[in-house]
This record gives sequence, structure tokens and C-alpha cells, in this order.
Amino acid sequence: MTSHASRRVQGDRLLADLAALASIGATPDGGVTRLAFSEEDIQGRRWFEAAARAAGLDTRTDGAANLSARLPAASGDARTLLIGSHLDTVRNGGRFDGALGVLAGLEVVRTLAELGIRLPFHLEVINFTDEEGAILGEFGSHALAGNLSDEVLQQPRGGARALGEGLERLGITPQSIGAAARNPNSLAGYLEVHVEQGRRLEESRTDLGIVTSIVGIRSCWLTFEGEAAHGGTTPMPRRRDALWGAAAFVRCAREHVMTAHPEGVMNCGCLELPDGSFNVVPRIVRLSLEMRHGTEESLQTMAAELTSLAEEIALAHGLSLRNDPAEQHRPALCHERLMAETERAADRLELSHTRLLSYAGHDAQVMCHITPTALVFVPSVDGISHHPRELTWDGDVVNAANVLLHTVLGLAGDS
Amino acid sequence: MTSHASRRVQGDRLLADLAALASIGATPDGGVTRLAFSEEDIQGRRWFEAAARAAGLDTRTDGAANLSARLPAASGDARTLLIGSHLDTVRNGGRFDGALGVLAGLEVVRTLAELGIRLPFHLEVINFTDEEGAILGEFGSHALAGNLSDEVLQQPRGGARALGEGLERLGITPQSIGAAARNPNSLAGYLEVHVEQGRRLEESRTDLGIVTSIVGIRSCWLTFEGEAAHGGTTPMPRRRDALWGAAAFVRCAREHVMTAHPEGVMNCGCLELPDGSFNVVPRIVRLSLEMRHGTEESLQTMAAELTSLAEEIALAHGLSLRNDPAEQHRPALCHERLMAETERAADRLELSHTRLLSYAGHDAQVMCHITPTALVFVPSVDGISHHPRELTWDGDVVNAANVLLHTVLGLAGDS
Repeated sequence: MTSHASRRVQGDRLLADLAALASIGATPDGGVTRLAFSEEDIQGRRWFEAAARAAGLDTRTDGAANLSARLPAASGDARTLLIGSHLDTVRNGGRFDGALGVLAGLEVVRTLAELGIRLPFHLEVINFTDEEGAILGEFGSHALAGNLSDEVLQQPRGGARALGEGLERLGITPQSIGAAARNPNSLAGYLEVHVEQGRRLEESRTDLGIVTSIVGIRSCWLTFEGEAAHGGTTPMPRRRDALWGAAAFVRCAREHVMTAHPEGVMNCGCLELPDGSFNVVPRIVRLSLEMRHGTEESLQTMAAELTSLAEEIALAHGLSLRNDPAEQHRPALCHERLMAETERAADRLELSHTRLLSYAGHDAQVMCHITPTALVFVPSVDGISHHPRELTWDGDVVNAANVLLHTVLGLAGDS
Repeated sequence: MTSHASRRVQGDRLLADLAALASIGATPDGGVTRLAFSEEDIQGRRWFEAAARAAGLDTRTDGAANLSARLPAASGDARTLLIGSHLDTVRNGGRFDGALGVLAGLEVVRTLAELGIRLPFHLEVINFTDEEGAILGEFGSHALAGNLSDEVLQQPRGGARALGEGLERLGITPQSIGAAARNPNSLAGYLEVHVEQGRRLEESRTDLGIVTSIVGIRSCWLTFEGEAAHGGTTPMPRRRDALWGAAAFVRCAREHVMTAHPEGVMNCGCLELPDGSFNVVPRIVRLSLEMRHGTEESLQTMAAELTSLAEEIALAHGLSLRNDPAEQHRPALCHERLMAETERAADRLELSHTRLLSYAGHDAQVMCHITPTALVFVPSVDGISHHPRELTWDGDVVNAANVLLHTVLGLAGDS
């Protein structure tokens, strides 16, 4: 092969695609509502199929309604390199979250097809179903990874019936979901580009963020229990006030994480104080705690420290404490060789880059457990996401596709 | 008159009355349920009427169903000294709260009648309707004080219809309530004895507490408002987390009151965090704040300090703050001359006494705004109240009646 170092995608074509797609489900204030399984989702899929076919690419829909366009390898028994993200949005979300990854992938496949380059792997750009979780978050990538047990499918957060109806609307059946699972040995890797949904790149004026890990999540309910008492006659030093304990925990946990775990985050998003009354000292407070950190070890350390903290605070306030685990996700580690390949691609393109953690979930977090995965961020203006004002500048959109192109070329053994 | 310094009530008779009354509405675990306007309330009233008539006293029910027994003065146009409290209880409450004050008053009137003593004032022991607020708290004393506007009567917390039905069950009509109001000039004062519902007397081994003031109450809703944000991707130092502000306020307000206002108390009994979610930074938290202090000045100072504290905390956390006033009660100051009279009575009886604040409401808090009022506490074992385990030792029960007796004698100009 000849050198392809000077190759670039057609940026204008990609930007035009993004604008065209954003008109499907457009909201009055400049946002997009393209909920998975909705009529807008179906229109978005039709648009993608038409664009792929216009470029001479085959398209395919699997048993979980994941929609792909494919550039075959020279050899039929080659493995498949996936490039993906999702075309669905949250309600009144932005034009870039998900769409950028799929359309940049399409532009890369289209560019390579036009160049007539034969790759040593099949290249497949894939739109994963319902990443945002209208019915079941990361449904499509979980199906492809073979993670969807009957138990999970019977209790999607949107309801099993809604899932069945949604799939039917997309022309497939619940029974077909199992067939969407791929053999990991058939895969060469997974690449995803996504908007950062944060300000770190913008603030440091860096073109690209190479994600090392999508943070793991541990969450639990902490129940502080003291004693109901008259809010007037009970001397303050005698009270066993569940809210005093919960409030102390919220404050101390925040300080601890900000000081001892600058890369970790915590959130207390729910607080329930049942049967509250102006003049009664609170007996029970239920507090939700969610912790995120980049590695299993750091997450475990942080969780153990916060659990001890809650116990100490409860003891000091004469309260009992119950800790009921809730949703957990392991940290999803990106693949060192693929990360390095994206960095080499960035260097060839003379784009600045930095390694960072992703604090939000993505299809890459599912895929990394079955195949080597890289996830690359481009800047989000003001860090705004899931909002009509979500914005990534044109130059960064084009960078996203070019870094994908050169990562693919690098993996193909050509620079 | 001859000296009555050696006079005492008949303690055994008073204790027998308390036991007899406690059987009306007795609960399996030793408590009492005698909710205002209930069948048990009616039975309690019948018992009181029978006991008063057996002692040769006239009884009277006013337009608010307040029930009295009366010892007339020598002169018909004399003023009336009231001794009162309430026979109603909370659900599964104790045997002493309220009942002690009415029965000790009855024992005093009965004793004076038996002694044939002619007083320069009418002496009236009164059972106020619904002190505990089954339908409208301190209903009877408010009616007597002329505080019940049509507006208040249309919205009692138990409902206007329940109030009308309750009064009908007691044989009077809603229209009669206005007629219960007394001319303050017709009153010589109001005396009440009550169990402390706290531990101060027990801990300091003091026989009697002379209440200087029933604390005033200021309450409000504090609404902290920040910005909803992704609980993972939003860096912690950037968050405008309404719960962080509310938690800081709960902690700092507690410290401030305990340090700067040892006689004041505060309680945050309600916390509402609407639309809470594990992974979303809380946007809005509504927190109830109730403050109690002994004088209008100290209450105002404490309220101003806590309001400033909330504003500072909101500012420091990038939150807005709204402060919506809720229920307010002025501190109810007892009358210096009457307090001194109760202390002289205690000294004559060789009972130890101390001045203190009452942190709970009582009928005295309503009465003190229309007539000179004294409120005397006797010890509560372990400070327990509104509970089947509420207990005041026999000796303290009898002390309560004797201090009333000698206060009346003192006011009559005889010691």
C-alpha cells in the first residue's frame, strides 16, 4: 500500500449529514427528540440506511435492531472492526450526543470505500439501539455483547411490554434478541468518538480526549435511624436526629472525595424523610449515595472509606445505619494498544490530546468487556449536554472523523 | 380569716381520681386514648361532672364545650380565678398530660369548698376542649380568649365538618363558639399545673418548675435552589447542589443554636427533595425550620441569625434561597406577680423550685395573653410524654395540687 498520511474525510459532507439528521425530531428550541423505538427513531434509521446505500455500502439490522453499514475486508473470514455510537437522543437533547459517533463512522467507511482501500478486517459502522435508555439503557450494545438475560429483558425500566412493542415497531421480535450476540473472536475491536459532555478539553484547549476508563459506579441507600422526639421539649444535645447524621454525611463525604479522590465523584441525589413534621425530630432518613471512580481498586477504596465515614457519623449521633447496595457497574477499561493507536493518529493529524476518565456511560463501556475498545472525546462548548444548547464546533466534528480514519488506517498496518 | 398555712388537699382522693379517669380510654399497654370529641372524651366529661356535683359544685359547659366546676365568691360581682388544663389526650398517650391539671384543680376547689373558705374571687376549674389538637389545637382556650375568627374555624386542621360534628356530639353548635369568649376584665387570672414532659426537674432533683415563658415559635420553609446536573460528568467543585446547601445549613444552624442560644432550640423536621435521582445533582431542596425561644427579643435575634446563616450558605454554594414564613407564635410570658405567688406557696410547702422555660404549648400560652397567668411543672419520669410510659410519682402529683391550693390562698390575701 502507498502512504495514506495525507488522507482526510470530507468534512463538509459530514457536517451536512449532522445537520440533516438533526432535522429529524427537531424541537422548537433547537434541540432534538429522537427517543429510541419512536417514529423519529425509525425516520433516523431510514435516513442512515439511505445515506449508506447511496455510498454503495450494504446495511444490516440485527436481532436487537442495531443497524450497520459495512465495508468488507479483502478476505471473507477476516474479523470485524466496529465503529459505533447511537442515533437515539434523550427528550429535547442535543444534536451531537451519539449522532457524532455514528455519522463520523459512516464518513470514515464512506471515505475508505471511495479510496478503494482494502482493509485486513471488515469495517462496520453500527448504530446501537436505545443507548439513552428510553426503555433499556445500552440495549443494543448489551445485546451484541450477549448480556441480556431473560431476567433483564423481563424487567427493563420502560417495561417488558414497551420493549416488545418497540422492537415490533422496528420490525423485529423479542425472540430475535439472542441472535444479536456476536462471538468476541469475530471482532477486531471497537472504536467510538463522542462529545465530551464536560469542560476539561475546552478549558485546557485540547483537541482530543483519549478515554482510559469509563468510571465504575457503586451506589447504595444509606438509612440513618434515630428516635422521633418532640422538637421543642427535647434538649438538643439529647436528640438522636436522623437528619443531623445524614446532613453530616453529605458534607463530610463531599469534603473527603474532593480532597482524597480528585478523580472520583460522589452524589447524594435522593433524600427521603418520611412522615416529616415541623415539630418532630426526624427518626428516619434514607439517603442515596452514588460513587464513580476510574479503576476497580480506587472505587473500592473510596466506597470503603465512605462506608466507614457513614458508620462513624451514625455512631457519633446515636443513630443506627443500614447500607443497602443498589446499582453497580465495574469500571470499563479501554485497551492500551487502541488508545496508543488513537494517539498516533492524533499526532499524525497534529491534534493535541490528553488521557482522561469518562464519567458518563457509553456503548464503549459495554463493548470493552468483549473486545479491545477505544473511546475518543472531542470538546463540548460549556460542557453542556442532553440539552438543546449542546454544541461541538465544526472543526472538532471533523477532527473526530479524521482521528477515526487514521486509527483505522493505523490498525490496518498503514500510516 | 384564720391562717391556712397547714392546709393540704386530700392526696389519696386526687390519686384515686387520676386512676379512675385513666380507665376511660385505657389502652392495652397502659396508655390512654381520649381524643377530643370522641366517645371517650364524652365519658371523661361525664365522670368530671359527676365528681364535681358529688362535691356540691355547680358545673357549666360553655359554647366551645369547655366544662367547668365553680366555687362562687362571697360577692356576686367578683372576678373569676381560673384553674385549668385539659382532659383530652393524644392517641395512646399518658395518664398525666392535661388530666393532672384539671384533677388537681378539682381537688383544690373541693378542698376549699369543704373548708368553707369564702374567697374574694370566683374559683373555677376548667377542662379546655381539644388542647391536643385532634381537630383544632387549644380550641377551648382560644375560644375563651376570643381568638377564633370565622377564617380559623373554617379551616381547622381536622376539617370544619369534623369540628361541627364534634361539637354536636358534645351537645353544642358551631354558632355557639363566639359566646364562649370571656371579658378579660371578668378574670382574676389563670393557674395551670402540668407535667414537665422533660427531664430538667428530675435531673436537678427539684420539686417544682415555675415557668417564666412558654417559648415563642417561628417557623418557615427554606427553599435552596441550584442547578440539576449530571452526577457523574459535572466536576464536584462546579456543582450547585441544593442538598449541599441544605445539609450545611442543618449542621451550622444546630451548632449555632447550641453554642449561642443554650435556651433556644431549633428543629428541621421536614426535608423535601423532589424528583430525586441517584445520578442527578439535586436542584431544589425544601427544608422546614422551627425555632423556639423564651422571649420575643431572643427569638427575633435567633431567627435573624439563622436567616443570615442560610443566606451566607446559599451564596457560598451558588444557590438561591427563598424563605417562606410558616406558623408563628409569640412567646407567652407568665405573670411575675403570679409566679412569685407560686414560689411563696412552694416555700410554705417546703418544696424546692426553679424557674424555667416551657418548650411545649399549653392552654396557659393562650390564656396569658388575656389574663395574668402562672404555669407550674412537676417532674416527669425520664421526661417521657405522649406515651403510655408517661409517669409522675404520687408525691409530685399531690405537690401539684398543694401548690395550687396555697397559690389560691395567697392570692386571696391569706397565708
